[in-house]
Amino acid sequence: MGLPSGCPFKIGKGKSGALGKITDVPGVLVGHKTLACGDINTGVTAILPHGGNLFRDKVLASCAVINGFGKTAGLVQVTEMGTIETPIVLTNTLSVGTAYSALVKYSLERNPEIGVSCGTVNPLVCECNDGRLNDIRAMRVTEKDVLDAVDACADTFSEGAVGAGRGMVCMGLKGGVGSSSRVFTSDGKEYVLGALVLSNFGKKENLTINGEKIGEKLTSPEKGDEDKGSIIMILATNAPLSERQLKRLCRRAGAGLARTGSYFGNGSGDIAIAFTTANRVPQFGEKSVIDLKMLDDSKIDPLFELCAEAVEEAIISSLWHAETVTARGKTVLSLRDALGI
Amino acid sequence: MGLPSGCPFKIGKGKSGALGKITDVPGVLVGHKTLACGDINTGVTAILPHGGNLFRDKVLASCAVINGFGKTAGLVQVTEMGTIETPIVLTNTLSVGTAYSALVKYSLERNPEIGVSCGTVNPLVCECNDGRLNDIRAMRVTEKDVLDAVDACADTFSEGAVGAGRGMVCMGLKGGVGSSSRVFTSDGKEYVLGALVLSNFGKKENLTINGEKIGEKLTSPEKGDEDKGSIIMILATNAPLSERQLKRLCRRAGAGLARTGSYFGNGSGDIAIAFTTANRVPQFGEKSVIDLKMLDDSKIDPLFELCAEAVEEAIISSLWHAETVTARGKTVLSLRDALGI
Amino acid sequence: MGLPSGCPFKIGKGKSGALGKITDVPGVLVGHKTLACGDINTGVTAILPHGGNLFRDKVLASCAVINGFGKTAGLVQVTEMGTIETPIVLTNTLSVGTAYSALVKYSLERNPEIGVSCGTVNPLVCECNDGRLNDIRAMRVTEKDVLDAVDACADTFSEGAVGAGRGMVCMGLKGGVGSSSRVFTSDGKEYVLGALVLSNFGKKENLTINGEKIGEKLTSPEKGDEDKGSIIMILATNAPLSERQLKRLCRRAGAGLARTGSYFGNGSGDIAIAFTTANRVPQFGEKSVIDLKMLDDSKIDPLFELCAEAVEEAIISSLWHAETVTARGKTVLSLRDALGI
Amino acid sequence: MGLPSGCPFKIGKGKSGALGKITDVPGVLVGHKTLACGDINTGVTAILPHGGNLFRDKVLASCAVINGFGKTAGLVQVTEMGTIETPIVLTNTLSVGTAYSALVKYSLERNPEIGVSCGTVNPLVCECNDGRLNDIRAMRVTEKDVLDAVDACADTFSEGAVGAGRGMVCMGLKGGVGSSSRVFTSDGKEYVLGALVLSNFGKKENLTINGEKIGEKLTSPEKGDEDKGSIIMILATNAPLSERQLKRLCRRAGAGLARTGSYFGNGSGDIAIAFTTANRVPQFGEKSVIDLKMLDDSKIDPLFELCAEAVEEAIISSLWHAETVTARGKTVLSLRDALGI
Repeated sequence: MGLPSGCPFKIGKGKSGALGKITDVPGVLVGHKTLACGDINTGVTAILPHGGNLFRDKVLASCAVINGFGKTAGLVQVTEMGTIETPIVLTNTLSVGTAYSALVKYSLERNPEIGVSCGTVNPLVCECNDGRLNDIRAMRVTEKDVLDAVDACADTFSEGAVGAGRGMVCMGLKGGVGSSSRVFTSDGKEYVLGALVLSNFGKKENLTINGEKIGEKLTSPEKGDEDKGSIIMILATNAPLSERQLKRLCRRAGAGLARTGSYFGNGSGDIAIAFTTANRVPQFGEKSVIDLKMLDDSKIDPLFELCAEAVEEAIISSLWHAETVTARGKTVLSLRDALGI
Repeated sequence: MGLPSGCPFKIGKGKSGALGKITDVPGVLVGHKTLACGDINTGVTAILPHGGNLFRDKVLASCAVINGFGKTAGLVQVTEMGTIETPIVLTNTLSVGTAYSALVKYSLERNPEIGVSCGTVNPLVCECNDGRLNDIRAMRVTEKDVLDAVDACADTFSEGAVGAGRGMVCMGLKGGVGSSSRVFTSDGKEYVLGALVLSNFGKKENLTINGEKIGEKLTSPEKGDEDKGSIIMILATNAPLSERQLKRLCRRAGAGLARTGSYFGNGSGDIAIAFTTANRVPQFGEKSVIDLKMLDDSKIDPLFELCAEAVEEAIISSLWHAETVTARGKTVLSLRDALGI
Repeated sequence: MGLPSGCPFKIGKGKSGALGKITDVPGVLVGHKTLACGDINTGVTAILPHGGNLFRDKVLASCAVINGFGKTAGLVQVTEMGTIETPIVLTNTLSVGTAYSALVKYSLERNPEIGVSCGTVNPLVCECNDGRLNDIRAMRVTEKDVLDAVDACADTFSEGAVGAGRGMVCMGLKGGVGSSSRVFTSDGKEYVLGALVLSNFGKKENLTINGEKIGEKLTSPEKGDEDKGSIIMILATNAPLSERQLKRLCRRAGAGLARTGSYFGNGSGDIAIAFTTANRVPQFGEKSVIDLKMLDDSKIDPLFELCAEAVEEAIISSLWHAETVTARGKTVLSLRDALGI
Repeated sequence: MGLPSGCPFKIGKGKSGALGKITDVPGVLVGHKTLACGDINTGVTAILPHGGNLFRDKVLASCAVINGFGKTAGLVQVTEMGTIETPIVLTNTLSVGTAYSALVKYSLERNPEIGVSCGTVNPLVCECNDGRLNDIRAMRVTEKDVLDAVDACADTFSEGAVGAGRGMVCMGLKGGVGSSSRVFTSDGKEYVLGALVLSNFGKKENLTINGEKIGEKLTSPEKGDEDKGSIIMILATNAPLSERQLKRLCRRAGAGLARTGSYFGNGSGDIAIAFTTANRVPQFGEKSVIDLKMLDDSKIDPLFELCAEAVEEAIISSLWHAETVTARGKTVLSLRDALGI
């Protein structure tokens, strides 16, 4: 699986999971809410690390800021506490506040003790600027849209110009949501690594697919496109990793990103977040000591190599699945339309 | 100046500015919006690094996360780009989203090019959890409240149980907004350092004022108070500092904090943000090279020492100015009432 | 235990272990080699996380750079891999290279596979500048001195002007090696936290002991002493902590440091390193998954509070145990001599 | 210039400087000392940011740890103070201590005030593990070898299996020292960016040159090579950058590295250090305020793109210039020999 059979590209050497998506990691769910009407091309994508109560049953997590020209909310606490306790929401830059408030209400509703007998909650909201195809100043995403995306979460989902990816532009082509997965075996046990990206970065002339410098062929003589925008890279696994190792994993996302032609542009918020479903932290634990499991770092290299490859594939997948979109007086071609296939 | 004449406490050895507040730094303005009605005790405090268009005329800045159990939004980009480009807004934890959206609208209104011909904007929103005296689940802060606080910004302002400080509890006493300033001379030139804190941390038994362990005397035998809550520490100066030096300054806020009795508790978001008005970065610069000035690090020690002292004083000032508040079935005494003075 | 019975100071509220030293943590050993002859006042102090083969049986660890004007070697890998795999060696700044080479040879001798069938080794060497009482330019510490300190490691050891502490000056008084411990109970299980510092920082006028501003009384009118030098703070525990939590612990060392009068001076290398003996990582593990245990962060506050207190006490203990030293044309008084007790 | 005319590879689109080496940055000098005899294949490479007294006339600098399985000494202070004050020395892992001591003596000799009237000095020593072709346990590098490399510094220098690169293995081929440069223009002013790498990382099957997956063709069916070893990436420029921007530059080195086939392997110390000759910091400054210049970040993208490209080229250049080396019972082919050209 992975990139679909019609796709002429093959990324890397690893084996995809059954769906070739982040939802190959057992329990992980993804949902979209797409807003597409005239000059409004935006939306919300939600990732649930599992389908239960995330506040009470947190997953171990970490993050890496590869380039910090971005407005992602929640990373301070993810870094300090090593956990994720809400859905991960992706949306456009100016709607981060709306998504934050929606996640607060989502958490309050499910957890009457928040703000009463326990502390507050750390909403995790990531963003890219979809202002090239979306009238971002109109701020059309509502709290209901955010909750709709969370409600839509399932183990299958669309890629391309959907959800938060609706208005995104990547390498001068139509970007958006892309996903991939890889399976790997350690000590006879099989694990899954999944990636989901929101692609909105780069210059067309730099587009590289599995080493092939396709962008050079697609670029018109005038080019002059700047590297604007950002990329959010979500990594999920059921392999047992510690917080330190999850941060290490996040940094490998940068390797995959670079191989597609990114040089981590100045104006790009290049953010990676990783979680494992194999290590859980309860909000109201009865015991003072929690059992964790971690891969021996001397056995972790295959996971690192697959991580770079999974992120590379997820980016190409976002391009492959996107459709051409015309809005705000311009047309952004899909990769397939640009290649005429 | 500094702590008022009626106050029996004197912090440190340095000289305060004329007001003894952060607004002694020329150009810096502070405003509040207070919501106090029944079980609603919350609000907003805004700090303007200068009174002009912050998006077009950014100030150099940095930050330090002393303990990251907090939801401050905007730090990723402050760290990467070294600038602040919106008002700094303080409010309660669950209202960060509202404040984010309000700052987006504030910026869009003043800058028609945002999201059209240039990128987006990085709202800077800090928070503490005022849930002990405020029905925080009611989420009563509105976008208008945020803009009202910004509109109220002036070079004089109240301290104590006002603005974002209305519902805060610090060391088991009524906390809130506190401020201080210090003047210092380097090479014959006089500079000002100002601090503003939103105090909401600590256990009463640990309260220490200028070395005196006052908390031990105030604590009833049962005590058992946990160190919950957080502290936001904003540092302003007109001394020429680089981004690296501003981060160094932020870390000294931790020294001042520790002297009041904090041990950087697990559940405390202890966040420091520093900016200098002496180094500016334009949004639409004509030249590709910007002139900066920085203090020689070998001359920076007096500033570090005063920074620790200014933060310590700002915390004590927040306690001194606060009034006793009763809400949600409990009364939190002011320092003055607890001491019977 | 803790500070000895003759000592008029009591730091904090916690209970010390049997020795009141870092070696109260079961398995931890400390040894010194002191060089004291004329203008040579320097040495080496070694800390062994356990008495076995550290390369093959690593302890989980982390570190925090509170102020980075320092030359500690080994922190890059401690941060990335979360382990310590050699003795921790403290010495003077210009002897870091010698200590590094000595630790390489120590490791090569015990592990014939290093550089042959496995990778290399990460020596961990910390330093302060003892140039005020030691002719540091003479570089008198030898590799044998380093190995002698390691060989001398035992569960009892001296504090004060010994080992690496021989030439150190702290707050204008004779500093050096100090240690302390605290016991704490979580879920009915007792754990120990130990601290060992090499104190060489601060200005006499700022010396504060348990809140009392003793430095002000000791300072002559001229004062003018600069805050030079550094402090190394080693934390050991048998409580189960993750790498992330060990970093959190390290940051609390800064709170203890601040309470003694430090403001994290510009020229000070303020470095904290923490390890736990409860989580081990093998060099040649047979299994790909390692079992770890970590304290629930919601139960970690007592440990944080005791950490600040233990570091504060270790610093005061270094002063209390030091003796007056005269060298290089100046006399640096011990705390006891300065106080006339 | 850049890769020599006989080389069939062309990396990127940018224009090289006159030499195609880091020494195209005016003032930068590089020198080697090579030890090649039987199973001893190691050495030292030194980079001088300028030919004057580096301790008294420091260059602004920063660094990034892309993967921290490495023993580089000096980064703590580079990060805190933003300066380099000694030659940058590259050597094998077990000789870091020797190089540290040599740099101390080099600095003491030229600066009689060190350790007397001013503080100490921060030696900057980087390393890779050359144990596959070098009997690294023999620790043959001497302090004199280090000083010889510094003395040999000039504006021309060899690449390949020389100096610290003598024993290095990169992507299963003979690695070592490689260099490159790029010129760029901003606001009509021309600047130079130079890169020098010590390449010792990666698996042969992953070798990618300008997008072409050459490694797949070179790999024998058995392969099984692990990604061991590391890479040091030194970046020099005469463009005016702040410390924050130099750190940003360092992170772009990771993009260049990834394009050659690295996924930042577990056991690789992937370290980047950047300095600018355009901003200087005096040790004994007369004024308390230093004038700095920095590129407007909105104009910095061309520099970032060229940085990724320069590092990619420097790595390929290290492979191109290396020769086949046989030692310790194995032969490591050069790229040219592996390709039969």
